Amino acid sequence: MYVGVLVTLAGPSVSELDSAVSAVHRGGEMMGVVSFAASGALVAVRKRLDLFGMVVLACATALGGGIVRDLLIGRTPPAAFTDLTYLSASIVTALVLYFIAPSRRLTKGPLEIADAIGLGLFCVTGTVIADSAGLGAPTAALLGMTTAIGGGVIRDVLSGEVPTVLRPDQDLYAIPALFGAAATAALLSFDLYRAWTGLLAAAAAVGFRLLARRYQWHAPLARHARD
Amino acid sequence: MYVGVLVTLAGPSVSELDSAVSAVHRGGEMMGVVSFAASGALVAVRKRLDLFGMVVLACATALGGGIVRDLLIGRTPPAAFTDLTYLSASIVTALVLYFIAPSRRLTKGPLEIADAIGLGLFCVTGTVIADSAGLGAPTAALLGMTTAIGGGVIRDVLSGEVPTVLRPDQDLYAIPALFGAAATAALLSFDLYRAWTGLLAAAAAVGFRLLARRYQWHAPLARHARD
Amino acid sequence: MYVGVLVTLAGPSVSELDSAVSAVHRGGEMMGVVSFAASGALVAVRKRLDLFGMVVLACATALGGGIVRDLLIGRTPPAAFTDLTYLSASIVTALVLYFIAPSRRLTKGPLEIADAIGLGLFCVTGTVIADSAGLGAPTAALLGMTTAIGGGVIRDVLSGEVPTVLRPDQDLYAIPALFGAAATAALLSFDLYRAWTGLLAAAAAVGFRLLARRYQWHAPLARHARD
Repeated sequence: MYVGVLVTLAGPSVSELDSAVSAVHRGGEMMGVVSFAASGALVAVRKRLDLFGMVVLACATALGGGIVRDLLIGRTPPAAFTDLTYLSASIVTALVLYFIAPSRRLTKGPLEIADAIGLGLFCVTGTVIADSAGLGAPTAALLGMTTAIGGGVIRDVLSGEVPTVLRPDQDLYAIPALFGAAATAALLSFDLYRAWTGLLAAAAAVGFRLLARRYQWHAPLARHARD
Repeated sequence: MYVGVLVTLAGPSVSELDSAVSAVHRGGEMMGVVSFAASGALVAVRKRLDLFGMVVLACATALGGGIVRDLLIGRTPPAAFTDLTYLSASIVTALVLYFIAPSRRLTKGPLEIADAIGLGLFCVTGTVIADSAGLGAPTAALLGMTTAIGGGVIRDVLSGEVPTVLRPDQDLYAIPALFGAAATAALLSFDLYRAWTGLLAAAAAVGFRLLARRYQWHAPLARHARD
Repeated sequence: MYVGVLVTLAGPSVSELDSAVSAVHRGGEMMGVVSFAASGALVAVRKRLDLFGMVVLACATALGGGIVRDLLIGRTPPAAFTDLTYLSASIVTALVLYFIAPSRRLTKGPLEIADAIGLGLFCVTGTVIADSAGLGAPTAALLGMTTAIGGGVIRDVLSGEVPTVLRPDQDLYAIPALFGAAATAALLSFDLYRAWTGLLAAAAAVGFRLLARRYQWHAPLARHARD
C-alpha cells in the first residue's frame, strides 16, 4: 500500500505523517483513482467504446499518472502493479458506469467534475509521495503536478484527442494542479502538512479548476495565432 | 541476452528454467519480436509510410512492449538497448517486407496474424521475466499482459490510430493476453512451467485471439452509447 | 546539473571530459533545450494553442527526450526534475515566442531550423551521458538517437500529429540523429572526444538534417504502397 511504502521509504522524515494523515492519505489516493477511472470510463462512453474499452481506458487514466510518477522517482515496480486495490477500484468503477449506462449527452458535466476531483487529489498525494522519496520541494511539486495531469494526458492520447492540458478551448487545467502541488510542497517544507491541511490544499485545487471551468478563465492566445 | 539476464537476476528461483526452457524461451522472444516487427511494418505500408517509417514503426512495435516492461520492473537499460539481436531482427524484418512489397489491399490478414502471434508469445515471456525479477504472481501476470499489448498500443498511437485494445469494432484483444499471462503465472506458481507448458499457454493465447477475430467475439457496448 | 551528475556518476571513466568539454557540454544541452522548446512553442502557434499550451508543449518537447533517456539508463529522478535550469529555460523560450507572436504563416522555417539544432545537439549529449553511465558504444549511440528524436515524437503525439520521424512527406530525420550519435560513440571509443570534436559531430548532424530538408532526401516508398 502507498502508506506502507511511504513509511518504509522515508522513515522518520515523514514522521509528521501520523496515522490520521495516513488514513486520510490513502482515502485521498483511492478517491482520486475512482474519480479518474470514472472520467476515463465516461470518455469511453462518449467515444462509443465497448465494455472492455471502458475498463482499459478507466485503468489507464486512473493508474497512468501514478505509474509515471513512480517511474520518475525510481520506485519499481509501480504501486499500481503491486497493490491491486487501485486496479480493482478502477475496474469496479468502469463496471458500475457500464451498468448505469449514462446517456452520451449527459456525460460532459460528470466527466469534468470527476476529472477535477482526481486532479486536485493527485496533485497533493503525488507531491507527498515524491517528497517522502527524499526529493526537494520544487522537484516534489513538479512531480505532483505531473502525477495529476499525467493520467488525463494518457486518457486523451489513447482516445485520439489533443490533451485537455493543451487545448485552447479548455480553461485553466495545469495551473490549478501546479497550485495544489506547490501549496502541498510549501506545507511540507514548513512542517505544516497535516491531514486537514492536505485536504484543504486538494479542495483548493479542485475549487480552482471548477471555478476556471465555470467562469471560463482562459490563457490568452498568441497575438498573430488569431489570424 | 534475455536468458542470461534471467539466470543472473533470479538465480535458483528460476532453476526450473533448465536449458531446454531457456532455448525455447529465447526462441519465443525472437519470434514475438519478428511477429510484432512485421505487424508494425505492415501498418506502415497501409499508412503509405516510406522505408524509414517502416523500420522505425517495426522497431517501436517489436521492442516497445519489452522496453515498457523493463522500465516497470526497474531493469535499466532495457534489454532492447543492450542485446542488439532484437533490434537487428526488427530491422531485417522491416527490410524483408519492404522488398516483398505486399499490396496494401493484402496486408490486413497477415497483419492480424502477426499481431496475434506476437501477443501470445509476449504475454508468456513477459510474465516469466517479471516473475524471475521476484514479483508475485498477480503482478507478474499484469506485467505480462502489459508487455503483450504495449507494443501494439505504441504502434497505433504513433501511426495516429486509436489503439486496437480500445476500439469497439475490434474483437477481444486484451482478454486473450490476460488469459495467457494468467495461465503462465499459474504454471509458475504451481511449479509446472516447462518449455512445452509455456508454449502451450502461448498457443492458447494466440488461438483465443484468432478465434475472437474469426467469430467476432465482441464486448457489449454501454446501453445508451448506442444512441 | 548534468555535468556534475556526469562526473559523480562516472568518475575517472570520463576524465576526458575536462572542464572545457564540461562547459561546452552544458552549453550544448542548454542550446538543445532552447531549440526544442522553440520548436514546441512554434508548433503550438501553428495549432492555435493558447499561452499555457505553448508553455506545456515547449517543456514537453525540450525536456521529453532527456527524461526518456534518464529513465532508460535508470537515472531517477531525471535531471529535468532536479535541475530546474532546463525547465526555466523552456518556459522563458515559450514566453519570448508568445510576446514576439510570429505569424502562423512564418513559423515553418524557424520551426524546422530549431528542430534540426535540437536534434544535432541532443544526439551528441545524449550519447555522452549514456556512455558516462557505463554503457557500451552501440547502446550509448542508440540512446543518443532516442534522446534526440524523443522530444519531437512527444511533441507530435501530444499535438495530434503523426511524428515527423515516420512521415513519408518528411525528409531524413532519424538518420542524421543516428549519424551524429554513432560519430560521438566512435569518438568516445577511440578516446578522441573533445569539446571541439563533439561540437563538430553536432554540427555535422545539424547540417545533415538541414541538407536533407533542402534537397528533399527521401527514403523510398514500398513499391506497392504507391497503389
